[in-house]
Amino acid sequence: MSLMRIALLQADPTVGDLAGNAKRLLALVEQAKSTGAHVAVSTELAITGYPPRDLLMSPDFVQAAFDKTQACSPTIPMLIGTPVPGTDREMAPANGVVAVGEGLRGKVVAHKQLLPTYDVFDEARYFRPGSRPGLVRGAGGMDLGITVCEDAWQAAGLTPVDYGVDPVAQLAALVRQDATLSATVNLSASPFHHAKVADRITVARTAAARLGTPFLLANQVGGNDDLVFDGSSIAAWPDGTVVLAPSWAEGVLTVDLNDPSSSTWTPSNAADALSIGAHERLVLHPDQAAPTVTGAEGLVDAVVTGLADYCRKSGLHRIVLGLSGGIDSAVAACVAVEALGPEAVHGLALPSRHSSQHSRDDARWTAEALGMRFSELHLDAMHEPAETLLGDVLRNGHAVAGENLQARLRALLVMGHANAEGAMAIATGNKSELAQGYCTLYGDMAGGYAPLGDLWKMDVYAMADVFNARARAQGRDEPVNASTMTKPPSAELAPDQVDEDTLPPYPVLDRILRAHIEEGLDHAAIVARGEEASVVTDVLARMGRNEHKRWQMPPAPRVSVRAFGQGWRMPLAGRHDWRD
Amino acid sequence: MSLMRIALLQADPTVGDLAGNAKRLLALVEQAKSTGAHVAVSTELAITGYPPRDLLMSPDFVQAAFDKTQACSPTIPMLIGTPVPGTDREMAPANGVVAVGEGLRGKVVAHKQLLPTYDVFDEARYFRPGSRPGLVRGAGGMDLGITVCEDAWQAAGLTPVDYGVDPVAQLAALVRQDATLSATVNLSASPFHHAKVADRITVARTAAARLGTPFLLANQVGGNDDLVFDGSSIAAWPDGTVVLAPSWAEGVLTVDLNDPSSSTWTPSNAADALSIGAHERLVLHPDQAAPTVTGAEGLVDAVVTGLADYCRKSGLHRIVLGLSGGIDSAVAACVAVEALGPEAVHGLALPSRHSSQHSRDDARWTAEALGMRFSELHLDAMHEPAETLLGDVLRNGHAVAGENLQARLRALLVMGHANAEGAMAIATGNKSELAQGYCTLYGDMAGGYAPLGDLWKMDVYAMADVFNARARAQGRDEPVNASTMTKPPSAELAPDQVDEDTLPPYPVLDRILRAHIEEGLDHAAIVARGEEASVVTDVLARMGRNEHKRWQMPPAPRVSVRAFGQGWRMPLAGRHDWRD
Repeated sequence: MSLMRIALLQADPTVGDLAGNAKRLLALVEQAKSTGAHVAVSTELAITGYPPRDLLMSPDFVQAAFDKTQACSPTIPMLIGTPVPGTDREMAPANGVVAVGEGLRGKVVAHKQLLPTYDVFDEARYFRPGSRPGLVRGAGGMDLGITVCEDAWQAAGLTPVDYGVDPVAQLAALVRQDATLSATVNLSASPFHHAKVADRITVARTAAARLGTPFLLANQVGGNDDLVFDGSSIAAWPDGTVVLAPSWAEGVLTVDLNDPSSSTWTPSNAADALSIGAHERLVLHPDQAAPTVTGAEGLVDAVVTGLADYCRKSGLHRIVLGLSGGIDSAVAACVAVEALGPEAVHGLALPSRHSSQHSRDDARWTAEALGMRFSELHLDAMHEPAETLLGDVLRNGHAVAGENLQARLRALLVMGHANAEGAMAIATGNKSELAQGYCTLYGDMAGGYAPLGDLWKMDVYAMADVFNARARAQGRDEPVNASTMTKPPSAELAPDQVDEDTLPPYPVLDRILRAHIEEGLDHAAIVARGEEASVVTDVLARMGRNEHKRWQMPPAPRVSVRAFGQGWRMPLAGRHDWRD
Repeated sequence: MSLMRIALLQADPTVGDLAGNAKRLLALVEQAKSTGAHVAVSTELAITGYPPRDLLMSPDFVQAAFDKTQACSPTIPMLIGTPVPGTDREMAPANGVVAVGEGLRGKVVAHKQLLPTYDVFDEARYFRPGSRPGLVRGAGGMDLGITVCEDAWQAAGLTPVDYGVDPVAQLAALVRQDATLSATVNLSASPFHHAKVADRITVARTAAARLGTPFLLANQVGGNDDLVFDGSSIAAWPDGTVVLAPSWAEGVLTVDLNDPSSSTWTPSNAADALSIGAHERLVLHPDQAAPTVTGAEGLVDAVVTGLADYCRKSGLHRIVLGLSGGIDSAVAACVAVEALGPEAVHGLALPSRHSSQHSRDDARWTAEALGMRFSELHLDAMHEPAETLLGDVLRNGHAVAGENLQARLRALLVMGHANAEGAMAIATGNKSELAQGYCTLYGDMAGGYAPLGDLWKMDVYAMADVFNARARAQGRDEPVNASTMTKPPSAELAPDQVDEDTLPPYPVLDRILRAHIEEGLDHAAIVARGEEASVVTDVLARMGRNEHKRWQMPPAPRVSVRAFGQGWRMPLAGRHDWRD
């Protein structure tokens, strides 16, 4: 009975940083040991971080990762996710698991069988599939079944394709022959989207029920480029009991197989560990659903995680952004301050002759409420010379050229600050306007990261409510004031301009875009839902024309069911115009 | 003997334009018929264009492509490359071939077996592989073996991976049982890189020899985003005789199986047909090597094709670019003028206080020699107000901020012209400087297409020689004058600045970058070739730091063995800094 504690190492690796990732894992194992764990389980490809992408095309990289894994010598037995080299350099690696520590001798104990190759996943590009169920005997005195991420999803029927193979069923057959499996573990790198935790709990409960043993899923946490991972590692028992680790925090979930409620969560003691949101592990009773976190709360934490990790992993310590007085830049400022702290964020108000007084006031309000650095530079000093220099070209050309000019002058000043101060500029646009091309390339799209780039406009409002509520709870001023929340959205690039001059109202726009992008519905199907045909026509036409802008979007944390970027790799030629 | 003429339709499809592609194919078939062809063969996925990328993730798109293919009713029998839907919507399509016309009833006659999934290819993401050799009986009175692109490469040993299956060997086994195959055809979408034609000839000769019948390869031509296809369709006979279609032109190669020298090339009669370079089909005797086109000639045609097609397919009719008086912008102007004509190209000289008189003179020279529109705007009118506005931020910050400021002011003026005039700006940078991050994001990197983005600096000089020689041959002034050819490369963003202040001499830099990027060599291996260790260290460090800039590069025609972009999908976080 004593040898029944398994630690799930919910780590935040940096893609490609083999030495750093090994060090992080070994530090977590030491913490796991102190919680009484007998064996520790890492996340998928923990040694390389997920997703390593074309680094995996280098046999030298694969070999170095495998060697680094085998060289780990933890003080308790440990299963580590790593690429496993083929028998020659031309052969693709496996997405595997190696057992190290106490008598396990660096043996390969599992090869991932189901290789997801859709949306953000491209594993058939990189890996050869395994063909047998994973298994380790005598790890910390236990025999354990082993699966890797997608391997467990077929059994729950939650994959978009039918693999024709079910590794959970294979293990269940083994269990019927051999009653000694103490548990089955799953090494995961399962990216976030809203509502993903509920799916993962279904996967874990399904597997535990099929196998008749506890099923433990260790999930990566943190941001790597445009993917964010929520962690939320899970242990499920055959009766449906679940222990759930916190999201958005690095640490160790030590699971007591015999007593769910004795399971513990230990935050990582690394100085730079990710630690956002709540820090309690939860126990769910058999019939209990996933904890209801309001959507916007989860989105805020996801986006803050994405930006914070992008900066940490890139060695960036400061952020510059333009503050227009509008909702997007206000919420982006909230995200930046939450991610890096107010002293690390510099907001620039850059009013032009078209900017209203409320915009200038609201921008200052947000900056002061957040306690960040704030500067105001009036654009006129450059705007007029630029117009003079372009002269007839502007007067006789498309009007949008004059509008874009202002956005690009702002980008030039934001980037000037960023370059001079060694900071990163962030782009503040949201997914709704990006999808419509209602934004300026090299203007408001400029920046190294787009924290709101995968969020619909109405989600941005919902996130503002979250930030305001959090501020109120701490006795601080609301960073997004009532004026910003309620005024009609406007780019303020022409006199009295509002977004609705060009776009449908955002609730309508978001509905149409969601239907098209997330559900894949075409014009007819969207109209059949009751949207006005001409509006749908215009929205879809703008999407096609402006494909190129989305393609040039900086990394944006993927929080939606279907993001742009990977998994939305459309041809450009034939689809866009260049006028704006 | 009479039923022995096969037409290879060397078409230039637009990705996703199913109706337009079908129309183009049917027009080419009519031309083929008039040359006495009995059957016509399209390129790979001719109905969708290659590469369709994530369009293939839509079952509706796949079905529409297949339906459009089956609905083709040409006046001679025809084999068309098309995605073939699975038996249910969850099943991936095949990369297949459908036979239409005269008694063939839209039958699926081949499924591609070898799915390349490396470098720019990602076919395991999209397709299920076939398992049997392709075959059509009674097409124009002939029985034909059918292969699709990669299917034929395993036999020649020219794939980077070993597939364990060889469709040519399968067909050879069929031929041994059944002597009626008149020929084997191959539907290809094989992208260009320098020296690729020689490889393709080896593939065709190998297959013809193995099969003991003629082997005919129809290859796509034209540019789609960052891929360019050279065409160069091939017929090879078992004795090694080869008929080779022109590169960079749309048309029909009608192959007489009994008499290679009677084979004909017919240029497409479409008004917008691609037609660049020479227009003669070649006959190679059995021992004759691929025709020696000097590298730079091929690169010029490739890059002109890429830009011309990108513009045509996107409905762009005008180009704007900055002319610095340096080699890159001079050659980019040559490319633009060759692609769209001098009246469609507007060059802007944008001198700053750091620009030399020779730069201004040389920029004007190039524009006048090419007969393009030319304007000069002096940057000072904006440069000084911008410096005043940024004030202490610039004075006290990284020096690079001031340099970037100038590049971004230029981008703002170039984009202002482009937006006002409904033109596309092009970025003029080369691959050597992009690899080093020696360029300004939102500055000289701004533009919708980067014609030189996959060309090493020394290749740009070689291309200048080609453009100059072509001008001399036509009795025109050389567009790249001696001053531009011989002066030390300089960004002219600071007083007396030259590129060698920061970078090694370009011949050295190009050698190191080629070794690292094209051959995958690491620091030790490059030093072992005789490069100075500290220089290699600096070059590789700059590459790592500046990953992000390459990721934001506009589409660049892929002409090298290994390009950035697809096939160089590296993680960003942890690899770059944002100071420049």
